[in-house]
Amino acid sequence: MSKKITKRSENFSKWYNDIIIHADLAENSGVRGCMVIKPYGFAIWEEMKQTLDKMFKETGHVNAYFPIFIPKSFFTKEANHVDGFAKECAVVTHYRLKNSDSGDIIVDEDAKLEEELIVRPTSETIIWDTYRKWIKSYRDLPLLINQWANVVRWEMRTRLFLRTSEFLWQEGHTAHETQEEALDEAKKILFIYKNFIENTLGVPVLHGLKSDNEKFAGAEETYCVEALMQDGKALQAGTSHFLGQNFAKAFDVKFASKKGSLEYVWASSWGVSTRLIGGLVMTHSDDNGLVLPPKLAPYQVVLIPIYHNDEEYKKLQVVMQGVSEQLRSKNIRVKEDFRDTQKPGWKFAQYELKGVPIRLVMGPRDLEKNTIELFRRDTLEKKFLRLDDVTAEVVALLDEIQENLFKRAKLFNEQNTFLVDDFSTFQEKINKGGFVLAHWDGTSDTENEIKKLTKATIRCIPMDVEKESGQCVLTGKPSVQRVVFAKSY
Amino acid sequence: MSKKITKRSENFSKWYNDIIIHADLAENSGVRGCMVIKPYGFAIWEEMKQTLDKMFKETGHVNAYFPIFIPKSFFTKEANHVDGFAKECAVVTHYRLKNSDSGDIIVDEDAKLEEELIVRPTSETIIWDTYRKWIKSYRDLPLLINQWANVVRWEMRTRLFLRTSEFLWQEGHTAHETQEEALDEAKKILFIYKNFIENTLGVPVLHGLKSDNEKFAGAEETYCVEALMQDGKALQAGTSHFLGQNFAKAFDVKFASKKGSLEYVWASSWGVSTRLIGGLVMTHSDDNGLVLPPKLAPYQVVLIPIYHNDEEYKKLQVVMQGVSEQLRSKNIRVKEDFRDTQKPGWKFAQYELKGVPIRLVMGPRDLEKNTIELFRRDTLEKKFLRLDDVTAEVVALLDEIQENLFKRAKLFNEQNTFLVDDFSTFQEKINKGGFVLAHWDGTSDTENEIKKLTKATIRCIPMDVEKESGQCVLTGKPSVQRVVFAKSY
Repeated sequence: MSKKITKRSENFSKWYNDIIIHADLAENSGVRGCMVIKPYGFAIWEEMKQTLDKMFKETGHVNAYFPIFIPKSFFTKEANHVDGFAKECAVVTHYRLKNSDSGDIIVDEDAKLEEELIVRPTSETIIWDTYRKWIKSYRDLPLLINQWANVVRWEMRTRLFLRTSEFLWQEGHTAHETQEEALDEAKKILFIYKNFIENTLGVPVLHGLKSDNEKFAGAEETYCVEALMQDGKALQAGTSHFLGQNFAKAFDVKFASKKGSLEYVWASSWGVSTRLIGGLVMTHSDDNGLVLPPKLAPYQVVLIPIYHNDEEYKKLQVVMQGVSEQLRSKNIRVKEDFRDTQKPGWKFAQYELKGVPIRLVMGPRDLEKNTIELFRRDTLEKKFLRLDDVTAEVVALLDEIQENLFKRAKLFNEQNTFLVDDFSTFQEKINKGGFVLAHWDGTSDTENEIKKLTKATIRCIPMDVEKESGQCVLTGKPSVQRVVFAKSY
Repeated sequence: MSKKITKRSENFSKWYNDIIIHADLAENSGVRGCMVIKPYGFAIWEEMKQTLDKMFKETGHVNAYFPIFIPKSFFTKEANHVDGFAKECAVVTHYRLKNSDSGDIIVDEDAKLEEELIVRPTSETIIWDTYRKWIKSYRDLPLLINQWANVVRWEMRTRLFLRTSEFLWQEGHTAHETQEEALDEAKKILFIYKNFIENTLGVPVLHGLKSDNEKFAGAEETYCVEALMQDGKALQAGTSHFLGQNFAKAFDVKFASKKGSLEYVWASSWGVSTRLIGGLVMTHSDDNGLVLPPKLAPYQVVLIPIYHNDEEYKKLQVVMQGVSEQLRSKNIRVKEDFRDTQKPGWKFAQYELKGVPIRLVMGPRDLEKNTIELFRRDTLEKKFLRLDDVTAEVVALLDEIQENLFKRAKLFNEQNTFLVDDFSTFQEKINKGGFVLAHWDGTSDTENEIKKLTKATIRCIPMDVEKESGQCVLTGKPSVQRVVFAKSY
């Protein structure tokens, strides 16, 4: 195998980057901090999009599209919001280039915008400026709108998929009559995310609330799902915000209620991004390369023949195309690699690196015996199948692989989740990596102090768990429940 | 009907705008020249996207994603290209905001970019800068890549969907070993566009080549499809460019050929945009509002009950939901409007305005007689159906409506296409509107002169037609074939 992947144990960060590059998922572009998502990586995103979009639509959401630019004056209307994003904005100031006297192409200073435009880092402000025109009465509510879009947050230190200046995401923005409805929506989406990430990506997540330190700039509450990567660091996989009436007040969006009074609208917003691809890689992949859950694999099965002459090739082609057709008739995504420009061994390594869940190989002896060799990417196991059994076996095995990846990751999470009650163990566990469940006194000061001492942050305050009171791991002050600490991406 | 649509005959431009606004397709945003695509309009775009994306994939194309920003130095590498786009660029110059001493949020002058970034007006330059890294040998070719993206071209006079500073589109960028292959690709896509626009949008198009004046900045040849709007003006509906080796040379993209020599790569690029929605509206719609071809209608059928009391409502609901289920089982997109907050008459007008192809209405008397009233949007005809026949009739009628819209538009095109040989008739016909087929001496000078005198441009030089030689309609000089003149959007 010519493309060598660094081992996880040697350098996790380099391992991650090697996989992203060598499995053809993405690469850095000529533009600082912006990535090119390559066709193989983009096909994974397309599968994600399709699944999640369906889940949104089934729960009454519709898609729309809002402008990429936000006038500076909109952007600054919600005070916390602008504080959160002002330091990482791409700012458009001019709308024309021209030839200089020396013949160079330069910015035309005569074409300076009266008001600067911000390339959206998120769209609450431009959307709530629009909602003011759409919402007059309770009859116009709820609005349940999502958009699939690119956003820009100027990052100084970037990593492919995890932190890039431009990324792709979906952002939902909903408007409601009551606080309760908006809260319910934020939670409903949280569980859609959890369901999607666990069942489609095969990545187990904790769900809960963010602390005030970690919540979205402009939100009253941020709900989140958090995953644990193989290096023991947490990854925020998705967030859903209850925005209260903050944006309605900033953009003066009121509605005539059923009782006839004029009230501010309640809001939620929520998003997941191409960052999920990074989480997918760091959860399942191994030292041989990418490992993909079947539901997201651009090719679920690859077929490779082994032959020594044209006659063998032709015989194999007929039989293997028959297998392909059978698999395709079951809606399985199949790749046939019959090229003679590459050796079988090279192909094996290549598709292993690319994380194709199942490889089927046939040689001349298989032809005689009516067998086919099956290799599964998740366990690296091989077995021989009777040709007649291939389709049924593959169908069942794809489900099994999907399940196995989730179970394996779930087990890893359990083995790396620690209940800790004293601060020296806390420091030790945080350094080793993993989720640390500890008591916290509920103050930002303590959270900041812990971060300073250990680099760990509160990833989430768990919901739907039995609450156990105790004493803060740092200050010893009373605590109503354990919260989840970890170092994070 | 509260939302009044201006008549086409009174003011075509206002009629167009009324439909876009009142049918909830799109509206202007708080950002100069940028539109908000509303959920109903966006649903039409999603249907278009899905159909076209499938056609691209079936012909071997894959999707990817390239950065929204283009460094100025890339942008200026292909001389004709930068000439074509420099005057309408959004330029990012800074990457941070800050608080001024007076507390305002201002651009942070310390965060000035070393090199300005252009918000992509089209992506040839950033993509060919990337292709240089991807293409080493003939084995890496062809590359058949498409992206769905937003682009920005700073427009001074904007019109919803037709000309906006930001719009959505797809842009294909392909790389080939030979000139012939790249040309074949550009033509293959042209016919995919023609097929898509005629069969899915129901909009007939002429296809052909652009003259040098009208071709894409950086292309050797531009192939195009041109549609005729109801006001007699042409709309460029899609373009496919043969780029020769222009971008390969500008970005130094060479490959080792089969013969072992190092050669520049051949290229094509091609795109259609949300502008197609404007073309759709101006082709089919009438003075009552939007008319949608069934293949693109977010709802193909709307069901509305007429009732006077709760008992009637309940009976109708049961029967009509049965109809809905039957229709949905045939993959028909159905909307039920059982709301009691709006009167039936208001609903009729509303869905007519929104172009829903078929309306089904039931009242108490229909219940007794087992009938349902069907209204078709394209012809405004009503008829009664036996309940048992509804599904079969609707299935057949949706096909018929799709076909009828195309036929009607095709007939309109034929009736408004004129063969003209003298310049005074030419001027008269151009003023009246329509496609004018006339002889042209092949020079840009003559084309410019005709434009100055009549505002008409050459929309396309027809392909696949019998060529008839003649004399230029303006200069009398020899001409090898008629070309298509029209005023255009």
